[in-house]
Amino acid sequence: MQLTTVKEIYRDKEQHLDKQVTVGGWVRSVRDSKTFGFVVLHDGSFFETLQVVYHDSMDNFQDICKLNVGAAIIVKGTLVATPQAKQPFEIQAEEITVEGDSAADYPLQKKRHSMEYLRTISHLRPRTNTFQAVFRVRSMIAFAVHQFFQERGFVYVHTPLITGSDCEGAGEMFRVTTLDMENLPRTPEGKVDYSKDFFKKETSLTVSGQLNGETYAQAFRNIYTFGPTFRAENSNTTRHAAEFWMIEPEMAFADLEDNMELAEAMLKYIIQYVLENAPEEMQFFNSFIDKGLLERLELVKNSEFGHVTYTEAIEILEKVNDKFEYKVFWGCDLQTEHERYLTEQVYKRPVFVTDYPKEIKAFYMKQNDDNKTVAAMDCLVPGIGEIIGGSQREDSYDKLKSRMAELGLDEADYDFYLDLRKYGSTRHSGFGLGFDRCVMYLTGMQNIRDVLPFPRTVNNCDL
Amino acid sequence: MQLTTVKEIYRDKEQHLDKQVTVGGWVRSVRDSKTFGFVVLHDGSFFETLQVVYHDSMDNFQDICKLNVGAAIIVKGTLVATPQAKQPFEIQAEEITVEGDSAADYPLQKKRHSMEYLRTISHLRPRTNTFQAVFRVRSMIAFAVHQFFQERGFVYVHTPLITGSDCEGAGEMFRVTTLDMENLPRTPEGKVDYSKDFFKKETSLTVSGQLNGETYAQAFRNIYTFGPTFRAENSNTTRHAAEFWMIEPEMAFADLEDNMELAEAMLKYIIQYVLENAPEEMQFFNSFIDKGLLERLELVKNSEFGHVTYTEAIEILEKVNDKFEYKVFWGCDLQTEHERYLTEQVYKRPVFVTDYPKEIKAFYMKQNDDNKTVAAMDCLVPGIGEIIGGSQREDSYDKLKSRMAELGLDEADYDFYLDLRKYGSTRHSGFGLGFDRCVMYLTGMQNIRDVLPFPRTVNNCDL
Repeated sequence: MQLTTVKEIYRDKEQHLDKQVTVGGWVRSVRDSKTFGFVVLHDGSFFETLQVVYHDSMDNFQDICKLNVGAAIIVKGTLVATPQAKQPFEIQAEEITVEGDSAADYPLQKKRHSMEYLRTISHLRPRTNTFQAVFRVRSMIAFAVHQFFQERGFVYVHTPLITGSDCEGAGEMFRVTTLDMENLPRTPEGKVDYSKDFFKKETSLTVSGQLNGETYAQAFRNIYTFGPTFRAENSNTTRHAAEFWMIEPEMAFADLEDNMELAEAMLKYIIQYVLENAPEEMQFFNSFIDKGLLERLELVKNSEFGHVTYTEAIEILEKVNDKFEYKVFWGCDLQTEHERYLTEQVYKRPVFVTDYPKEIKAFYMKQNDDNKTVAAMDCLVPGIGEIIGGSQREDSYDKLKSRMAELGLDEADYDFYLDLRKYGSTRHSGFGLGFDRCVMYLTGMQNIRDVLPFPRTVNNCDL
Repeated sequence: MQLTTVKEIYRDKEQHLDKQVTVGGWVRSVRDSKTFGFVVLHDGSFFETLQVVYHDSMDNFQDICKLNVGAAIIVKGTLVATPQAKQPFEIQAEEITVEGDSAADYPLQKKRHSMEYLRTISHLRPRTNTFQAVFRVRSMIAFAVHQFFQERGFVYVHTPLITGSDCEGAGEMFRVTTLDMENLPRTPEGKVDYSKDFFKKETSLTVSGQLNGETYAQAFRNIYTFGPTFRAENSNTTRHAAEFWMIEPEMAFADLEDNMELAEAMLKYIIQYVLENAPEEMQFFNSFIDKGLLERLELVKNSEFGHVTYTEAIEILEKVNDKFEYKVFWGCDLQTEHERYLTEQVYKRPVFVTDYPKEIKAFYMKQNDDNKTVAAMDCLVPGIGEIIGGSQREDSYDKLKSRMAELGLDEADYDFYLDLRKYGSTRHSGFGLGFDRCVMYLTGMQNIRDVLPFPRTVNNCDL
């Protein structure tokens, strides 16, 4: 159908004023007096709604008056300016066709619903103001990420979801199987016989695409992943989902400095893209979800990010240890309260903390010459603390091998990974950005369940 | 590191000629005579390689001569034109630093390796010519898809991977569980007790995001998904993978005609994008992988797609039934041989076949007034047959409900889906494009294992 979108009307109103337009959308509200009425219509293309005026000259005037919230209609009429009114223009309808009515028990009424209630109707909540804004912005952020990397020549790699390796030694993975659960095949020793499973071995859902990503960085130099990732953590918090999306760039011939430059440029690019392309949504979030949002994002976009080593950061934080629930000391992991203090109170802008103790970081991070720290970096931002974590990767075959031995990792599982250090190794670096948390940061939404279309969390897998 | 890429040099050579450049990359070959030598270098940014000339005036001349294929080096030198030579320019090296050497047993030597062999080293094969081309083009196609939909205002939706519903009644799904397999909890009746599982119920990996996608189309009007999808089919063919990527657009206020227009525009857009952005790779595929590739893609790009109903198509095909292994008759499913005959012999261009018998299509497709067919469409293209399948969706609550009853589907599982027909239903349509098969089509690659970075197929889940 040839329909004009509400977005086209708002963004290019001169072209439509005083002309006939046909718009399709859903009713947000109807009110009528005896001879005319108003419909507020949204069509999903734009945050703002469109007012439609209709008159009893229409044959179906009474039907329109009785429309329930949520009904789908097609309106043909003339767009006219309304300089006296709140909205800039309205449609004077000549014809309204009901595409699909909305039953009386429509679960979304005009009143404000709680986030908790809306989570119980995840198939309908995208029709509300808040979720229209959230999921339109989510889509834009995703595109901004792709555009950022593609403009810079990064190759997008689809790393696998089903994996036979237990990447970071994390036990909290989901098993993937086609075995008959009621009648599991057994080995002679009585164990479950995974050689009968679909892949002839035990498989799980991945927790990170990084190691696979590194193999492609050593071929294409600059690559990124952007795909789903899984954690079977029993964490019932506002920031944990069992299924979430991750972005993991990886660069060959790149050290920690290059890595931080990329992370800073990426964050600024995404923020800029969203502010430019979703001004109405961002204004809405700033007014109704999180009052300090725009100011915070402007700060991130316009600051030069700070840099501090972990060791220096600990010295700074130790001086104010009485402020913290968890006291800091060299060797401790930084908690959100410490991270936020650094970025909000000390630096008053985003800050990279680098060179963490090797004991609290992953085996693949590059060991520094001090033998105590690794070339890791976390990017902390006002409002939440850590948003990005990354590192330069260990590129020495011998050092990687001995670190794996120290940690008791089975070399056989990492043959391919060691090969990268054997055949044309390069200094290389990368980081991970949790996409859903990034959406939370850019929208001010406080619960990860409200930025994922159909969130999967412990005990919850609806639709 | 500030490195000039090989792509920058090729695409903008005037700016670099007779100037100093620093390039990092991997050695494809080294040959030397007594006083000088040549290195062929690729850096992953571009399909073409760069020739480096080095002389014995360098301190490490002997080391460079001994470099193995695959070594990583950084070359500083002057880019000079070579009008007499095969390649347009070369670097006269002043300094070559070895970033990482390559052990003598490097599995990729200069000779041609078989696709089968390369599949056994999926972490190294992206360094070869063919896979450099495949995965750079794969990345571009992915971006072209996003750009196509975003330019048209479609909202990108991340539909969930883990699902509690058994969407199309397909039995062939992967189970997702955190239950202890060696010690499964049991109900009093002795069955596996899934109420103890992570989500408190049985869950699987999704086979399609469509039904979830429809809920968002009824809120945003135009949406698309682009994410991984799974089939636990025991199909060991060149076209089946257990994990693959799908694109599923869905449009409200759109009938079958709109759906076909979108599919046609999308295919043409993607082809155009790749031809423009990867001319070297496409030329390579056309010369070494599939001789008719470019001609076929140009045809698709420049044709107006044909349209034929299933019933008409059967009449056409029945006349030449002796050509086919499987004879056609009204009611049969079309096989690849029939599809290819239609598009290659009859239409000599892409063609949409519409209005299939309802018995061979999914329950959610819109029933036509003849009570025998549904508003389905398959897009057939020369070379492979079906590349896209879609339909207008049933938008009538009553018709959908009675069709579900006929097929014995449990209404309780589809409450949310029926709701869409109860609250503001619209005519709406969508389709699915298997992304990996699309990559095969655009590159001419013959095996799905060679367009997926780390393919998952029956019995195979390496890395």
